[in-house]
Amino acid sequence: MNDSYLNFVNSPLGARLARSLGLPKPEVLRRHRADEPEFGGVVAIGAGREPQLLDALANLVASIGVTSVAHESAGLWVPLATRHGLMTGRFEPADSGSPGRLAALLFDASGIDDSSQLEPLHGFFHDTLRSLGKCGRIVVLGRPPESCASPRQWTAQRALEGFTRSLGKEARRGITANLVYVEQGAESGVETSLRFFLSPRSAYVSGQVVRIGSAAGAGPQAAAPAFDWKAPLAGRRAVVTGAARGIGASIASVLAAEGAHVIGIDIPAARDALDLTMRQLNGTALAFDIAAPEAPAQIAAALDEQGVDIVVHNAGITRDKTIAKMTASVWQSVIDINLCAQERIDDALLAAGIVRDGGRIIGVSSISGIAGNLGQTNYATSKAGVIGRVQGMAPHLRARGITINAVAPGFIETQMTARMPFTLREAGRRMNAMSQGGQPVDVAQTIAWLAHPGSAGITGQVVRVCGQSLIGA
Amino acid sequence: MNDSYLNFVNSPLGARLARSLGLPKPEVLRRHRADEPEFGGVVAIGAGREPQLLDALANLVASIGVTSVAHESAGLWVPLATRHGLMTGRFEPADSGSPGRLAALLFDASGIDDSSQLEPLHGFFHDTLRSLGKCGRIVVLGRPPESCASPRQWTAQRALEGFTRSLGKEARRGITANLVYVEQGAESGVETSLRFFLSPRSAYVSGQVVRIGSAAGAGPQAAAPAFDWKAPLAGRRAVVTGAARGIGASIASVLAAEGAHVIGIDIPAARDALDLTMRQLNGTALAFDIAAPEAPAQIAAALDEQGVDIVVHNAGITRDKTIAKMTASVWQSVIDINLCAQERIDDALLAAGIVRDGGRIIGVSSISGIAGNLGQTNYATSKAGVIGRVQGMAPHLRARGITINAVAPGFIETQMTARMPFTLREAGRRMNAMSQGGQPVDVAQTIAWLAHPGSAGITGQVVRVCGQSLIGA
Repeated sequence: MNDSYLNFVNSPLGARLARSLGLPKPEVLRRHRADEPEFGGVVAIGAGREPQLLDALANLVASIGVTSVAHESAGLWVPLATRHGLMTGRFEPADSGSPGRLAALLFDASGIDDSSQLEPLHGFFHDTLRSLGKCGRIVVLGRPPESCASPRQWTAQRALEGFTRSLGKEARRGITANLVYVEQGAESGVETSLRFFLSPRSAYVSGQVVRIGSAAGAGPQAAAPAFDWKAPLAGRRAVVTGAARGIGASIASVLAAEGAHVIGIDIPAARDALDLTMRQLNGTALAFDIAAPEAPAQIAAALDEQGVDIVVHNAGITRDKTIAKMTASVWQSVIDINLCAQERIDDALLAAGIVRDGGRIIGVSSISGIAGNLGQTNYATSKAGVIGRVQGMAPHLRARGITINAVAPGFIETQMTARMPFTLREAGRRMNAMSQGGQPVDVAQTIAWLAHPGSAGITGQVVRVCGQSLIGA
Repeated sequence: MNDSYLNFVNSPLGARLARSLGLPKPEVLRRHRADEPEFGGVVAIGAGREPQLLDALANLVASIGVTSVAHESAGLWVPLATRHGLMTGRFEPADSGSPGRLAALLFDASGIDDSSQLEPLHGFFHDTLRSLGKCGRIVVLGRPPESCASPRQWTAQRALEGFTRSLGKEARRGITANLVYVEQGAESGVETSLRFFLSPRSAYVSGQVVRIGSAAGAGPQAAAPAFDWKAPLAGRRAVVTGAARGIGASIASVLAAEGAHVIGIDIPAARDALDLTMRQLNGTALAFDIAAPEAPAQIAAALDEQGVDIVVHNAGITRDKTIAKMTASVWQSVIDINLCAQERIDDALLAAGIVRDGGRIIGVSSISGIAGNLGQTNYATSKAGVIGRVQGMAPHLRARGITINAVAPGFIETQMTARMPFTLREAGRRMNAMSQGGQPVDVAQTIAWLAHPGSAGITGQVVRVCGQSLIGA
């Protein structure tokens, strides 16, 4: 839970020692605080040829109330910003001598339709990266390659992935870099994602690629659901499994802070902790073993009257063994709790119409489910299955406006990781672009973004919460 | 080029020292040799419920002439093998006490359509993994999740990825583990892939997921192209760019050994090396700078008369710098040579009909293109673009029976990696499931498999040649 190295190298003596020995110096990440402004500072705007998302960006900049400067690559920004009534200036090359001046770098690559047009990406980040402050934010915007009209366009848009991921790895200083692909016509659905990636809520989310499509369930006449940016989940009910402690308790807490009424589920043995957590959040505690055959019906019965808007499948266990030493019951218990139980519960809630239209289902996967892991055949199988679930179910739920997504945590500081052997824990902590483990709240904030009523255009996706871990598939 | 640690720990003294100090002991990988039998030993067969690919496996076992034993999970294998005229036995649990008895483990998971049915995977590998010998082979067969009829089936099939990747990471001893998804109706197209993954040709390919679809360009009446397993590329012409040395020369050499006439291209400055390499292979040398605007027309003119069947885009450069220090010309030269040139050449060859029907285009990408890399924004962008190219062009080329795929090398022992600083090189070598770098021939053999006339069902895919590197996206 306590990264003493991170604390040490951020002390005056430790910083000097780390500098003289060439040791990694993880940044203390800025995280969301209710008593601090979420956005601030100056945002630099860059663009490739014929950018198509500057309007959406202008709406965002107006909405979050930051100041912008236009890089020479984004000549269209100044008149556009003026039309939106925004104060804006020009990014001067001399600014690159003032480190920390910028809070975020936003690049609109949506109009690039050939690999020969990629140079403005280089030009913009070459000029601006040094001016980006600690825990700064980089977002590259493009069009989903698979929706592109020509192979040339597909190629150029797909190239953005390699670029953004490289930038994430070289930026350091707690800076994140993410790529948002916006489907043609889905421009209005981009705001929750840009707010997330620009805010301290995404402190440990970097190197990710997210696709914004048309809103699930939205016909041409469908009105966007009403919400308040200060309490977007107000009036919504959220079920969280494994909510007594750790990541689950953090998820419950963040959803409650965003206005949701939380129904926390955990095993009867954790009833006291669950009751305490739920009391603090004015939530409801349900002590059920989700692996029990009767659990889906019990949960459905408990929720029946009012239904539910958000279902977070967080409960999970690890029982690590190499496969030659793993018993069938250890194999099966992990598969059953981490995967089959999610399926049984969702099927019951969906069949009975308890998940309301416009609902949000979020499964917790894992980097192990993506990359596989030594001694975790059971766990990785279950967590890869969670990815299959969200991909497989998304099209079926679309008509009802229900989205289903997964988060895949990397190394998160919990009681579980605190019990790991020292070297393994240190390796896990440092092998990512942030040189540190994440916090449970990082997973929780990512889930809150996906659960947001404005995130209706995100479905069937997997977002890693891993500080851009080196480890992948 | 020379991994002295690998050599040392495989000496009698080094092995003792490594054991007593707990150091990693990379296995000397068995690689393809023309004077050694490609297949041999005993293959164990396992299966989930209602396996659908046992017939294809029986054809393979008959074709490569190995002995099989059936695990209790594959009860159907014995009568089926008998019908195919194969000698077969039963895998006895006692066999797990005889390490090294088995050469390969094959598991047919195609009939698993619910996560509650995954247990036989555990049962089979639990019983057999210890009996698998050094450099043994594991192949799990399933159905592509995205083609599954129900979300439950999609989930269960997708779960296989986490399983296979975990197995690859824990098996060690030079063992590879790969997952082959076979589309319904594409069963007859699986042989080249199974031969590749079972043979020493795939020594450094592990943790990969490959999809076999219906053959590109094949109508229901289309005859499979005739070929000889001993010289499958006989009568075929192959262009390889960057063929003078290193990985390119190895690609040329392997394609020639498989029977192809190779046309090697390299820059005029490398003409002597190119001439020498091509003379040794009875190939044709073309000294062109692929980045020159006139190159596509020159190459097209040189190939025009007889056309070409195989195009391998191997030429590429690195010019590493952090983006703040990278000049526009360094950025652009890497993008242009590694990506734009491929596009211009293919477009010219395809427009002029020089790539013959049933052709094979293979681009060389990189792990950096998947995961991004510090100091390689230009290189990673270009290599991610190569991935976009094969994904974007595959559907357009399908009607003509042309496939397009990419290989993504990890750490390969070349002159380039030999020049890396020691610690970086050592990290690159050890951070994969094989604890060593790959050889150029590993990339070349992977390309030869994709270039095979029997690989018509593989298109739009990316195969990593990385020893299951830890590094990913």
